Amino acid sequence: MQTQEGWALHTDKYQITMMYAHWKNGTHLQRRAFDLYFRKLPFGNGFAVFAGLERAIQYLDNLKFSAEDIQYLADQPERFDPAFLDLLRNFRFTGNVQGMREGTVVFPNEPLLRLEGNVLELQLVETALLNFIGYQTLIATKAARIKSVAGNDTLLEFGTRRAQEKDAAIWGARAAYLAGFDGTSNLRAGELFGIPVSGTHSHAWVQDFDSELEAFRAFVKAYPDDSVLLVDTYDTLRSGVPHAIQVGLELKEQGHRLAGIRLDSGDLSYLSKEARRMLDEAGLTDTRIVASSDLDEHTLLNLKSQGAQVDAWGVGTRLITAYDQPALGAVYKLVARDQNGEWIPSIKISSNPEKVTTPGLKSVYRIIDRRTHKARADLITPAGQQVDEGKTLTLFHPVHTYRKKKVRHFRAVPLLEPIFEKGKRVYELPTLEEIKAHYQKQRTLFWEEYLRLLNPEEFPVDLTDELWETKQNLIRKIYQQIRTENGNGNGKS
Amino acid sequence: MQTQEGWALHTDKYQITMMYAHWKNGTHLQRRAFDLYFRKLPFGNGFAVFAGLERAIQYLDNLKFSAEDIQYLADQPERFDPAFLDLLRNFRFTGNVQGMREGTVVFPNEPLLRLEGNVLELQLVETALLNFIGYQTLIATKAARIKSVAGNDTLLEFGTRRAQEKDAAIWGARAAYLAGFDGTSNLRAGELFGIPVSGTHSHAWVQDFDSELEAFRAFVKAYPDDSVLLVDTYDTLRSGVPHAIQVGLELKEQGHRLAGIRLDSGDLSYLSKEARRMLDEAGLTDTRIVASSDLDEHTLLNLKSQGAQVDAWGVGTRLITAYDQPALGAVYKLVARDQNGEWIPSIKISSNPEKVTTPGLKSVYRIIDRRTHKARADLITPAGQQVDEGKTLTLFHPVHTYRKKKVRHFRAVPLLEPIFEKGKRVYELPTLEEIKAHYQKQRTLFWEEYLRLLNPEEFPVDLTDELWETKQNLIRKIYQQIRTENGNGNGKS
Repeated sequence: MQTQEGWALHTDKYQITMMYAHWKNGTHLQRRAFDLYFRKLPFGNGFAVFAGLERAIQYLDNLKFSAEDIQYLADQPERFDPAFLDLLRNFRFTGNVQGMREGTVVFPNEPLLRLEGNVLELQLVETALLNFIGYQTLIATKAARIKSVAGNDTLLEFGTRRAQEKDAAIWGARAAYLAGFDGTSNLRAGELFGIPVSGTHSHAWVQDFDSELEAFRAFVKAYPDDSVLLVDTYDTLRSGVPHAIQVGLELKEQGHRLAGIRLDSGDLSYLSKEARRMLDEAGLTDTRIVASSDLDEHTLLNLKSQGAQVDAWGVGTRLITAYDQPALGAVYKLVARDQNGEWIPSIKISSNPEKVTTPGLKSVYRIIDRRTHKARADLITPAGQQVDEGKTLTLFHPVHTYRKKKVRHFRAVPLLEPIFEKGKRVYELPTLEEIKAHYQKQRTLFWEEYLRLLNPEEFPVDLTDELWETKQNLIRKIYQQIRTENGNGNGKS
Repeated sequence: MQTQEGWALHTDKYQITMMYAHWKNGTHLQRRAFDLYFRKLPFGNGFAVFAGLERAIQYLDNLKFSAEDIQYLADQPERFDPAFLDLLRNFRFTGNVQGMREGTVVFPNEPLLRLEGNVLELQLVETALLNFIGYQTLIATKAARIKSVAGNDTLLEFGTRRAQEKDAAIWGARAAYLAGFDGTSNLRAGELFGIPVSGTHSHAWVQDFDSELEAFRAFVKAYPDDSVLLVDTYDTLRSGVPHAIQVGLELKEQGHRLAGIRLDSGDLSYLSKEARRMLDEAGLTDTRIVASSDLDEHTLLNLKSQGAQVDAWGVGTRLITAYDQPALGAVYKLVARDQNGEWIPSIKISSNPEKVTTPGLKSVYRIIDRRTHKARADLITPAGQQVDEGKTLTLFHPVHTYRKKKVRHFRAVPLLEPIFEKGKRVYELPTLEEIKAHYQKQRTLFWEEYLRLLNPEEFPVDLTDELWETKQNLIRKIYQQIRTENGNGNGKS
């Protein structure tokens, strides 16, 4: 994959500000560990589809400061010490990264990436990793929702013109494809990732000719077997469909086939049923119907429940921008500090208990029932701790601890895999087709109640006793410290 | 500005499909005219801020197919004729473009860009132009709303981590800056566009040390006059603010100054008032308060109405993604076809009257009252038609035509300026500071009722009699044609 300029400065200024303050303080080579995760599922969905790892790897592999970047920093009002800038000039990522496989079904509060490294490099990469993984995970999750309604209908990503700038168009197309879409209209996404591309003509093509019929005839001349004719430029049922049928019959006579028609406005349920009837009556039973026009999982669900006769759906704006929730809100939190070779767990407190971080380096296991082959829970353990599959496992909810269950006869599958070791990539990138297949396989691990669109069951993500205790002790310790320092508080806080 | 790879394929496949069908049909060099505009204002706002022209120019200036692009197209199942691919190999944009100045206050249904060229090049550029201009205009408009509430408070764009991938972060930062923001956290946006950058430290900095006090002391050592201390890692009023005050007093003794504190969670109104009181009581009256945490124009309005003591606002997710409406929905429509050297107006019909296009090449004038210096309306005329400032102008609403008004003593200021002529750029790019100033000046042209956040008045965008007649005649002609071809309709449509 090609190198791109501007990697190192794709970050927030405060990362550099902190890096410099650490350098001035002599703490810049101290080792730290961070988790990247999200706290809340988007769209009211029951799960998310992890995506963005390949982009994150591309970034970490290519991360360096150009001469222009260094000059730009040198010109900042902070007047950074030239010795610090020399350090940046030779900067390369040297840390360890563990991460989930793209296409994995994931849940709130479990680490998607776990990073260990010196404080300099781990600050620098925060912003970009959140940016890459947040966006692709969001779009993959939205696409998964749409796919779950579409069933075996063809799904095409048509959002480039409404995407939030150039990069979003291609990485969004990739995320949609890995979570079940069949293709995209975006040619760069086709070129870069090998995603099948599709698209035939727009209203302008029809307007380009003196009549709709003439326009259709000119188009099928170029694509006698692959034309999908857009039928709503003037009047769908009175002009578009009859003209398409006329051209379809002409093609048939010549031994060709009208591949499809596309509906792009109006009542897609009514129009598709009428168009299907008209096509069938004319003997064009193998001409497919494609629909587009502000679609998402909700419109698809309604149209399909009304019996819309649509074979392929073009989904644009509402997918590529994740219209109903355009940000995942992923976070990147310090979880441990190295002191004399030992990892000391670190915590971030909040008045909102759901926002308190889980301290320490951690592993994540998916607990899978050996008889049903379905996932029972995800279990977060201290890093590297093995889960004994021979024993009975007692799981409890990390906030509502009275909610417990016992699990026997299970497999404990680790979800985090080594990606970088000492800055060297040790992970072999799967192909996009492999990622797509991985996601399909992941879905089979979950009962339908976790996968449904509306009001899904909450899948349990639990902590081991030990981890839960560590967390509670740290919380107590911090509040004790605050009370000691500041006997009489300032009331509300 | 640097060249970037992948410009030509930043498009929908159907553009290439149509280009090839035109080439096969021998119509690929026919001349056409397209308008780029939007139909509906975002966020319920009364206006939009036009942005994205510089990006569009960068694209048109650099638009060509790389050898890899041509190879990719050659491998498509359509098996494009090699002679067509040779044409693409030598492709350059050769058209004429008129456009509005960035920072112009704009309204629905007026052309923001008007393009003339051959049908090949005008199809190719559609997707990218919509993508660039749609996103920046959307974000500039959102930023304008936030600025209108913030008044003279400092506004900082902090959204990179939540932006929809890498490009959105920088172009969104630029759009926010031109519509009134004071800076960004994004270093690349600083490097590329000269936008002031800011940012100090995160929670991780505080967690990096054994105590909050130690963390604050280490930080101000690096920035004795520019530190903004984040005070909510453990407990804002019982720990963060008291520690910041302690460090602020130590700095003061050394002849320095604590620049600010930052609140990032909790009730920002209450916390800011308490923090202000505590800082003032300690004599740190010139230490500023910065607030961040899911802010937008609505939270700002409420916090300010409650008397929040905040000097600077960091706005992230809700600005950079335009959270409440993440797409502008701009469109690009064929408006005229050249036949034997004459422009023939073209129209796109829709059952929704607001979606019917306005045919023909057009100019846009802002009608400004000479006495009040306020805009009365925008007037769309056939291209190049002069508006006689000496006469009385009768304006009427293009849909509700009974709504009329007469205007005298006005200036008619043309809004579209030549950008490209025969593929050569004739427009000198203003600096970003000039664009920012242009927007500020534009605002002064409008009465407050058009600028307010909630339920603004609709600013009139009217057509001349002649243009309105042309449009009605074309609509009639098309429906007549449909009726002639298809005497008995299929009922509902």
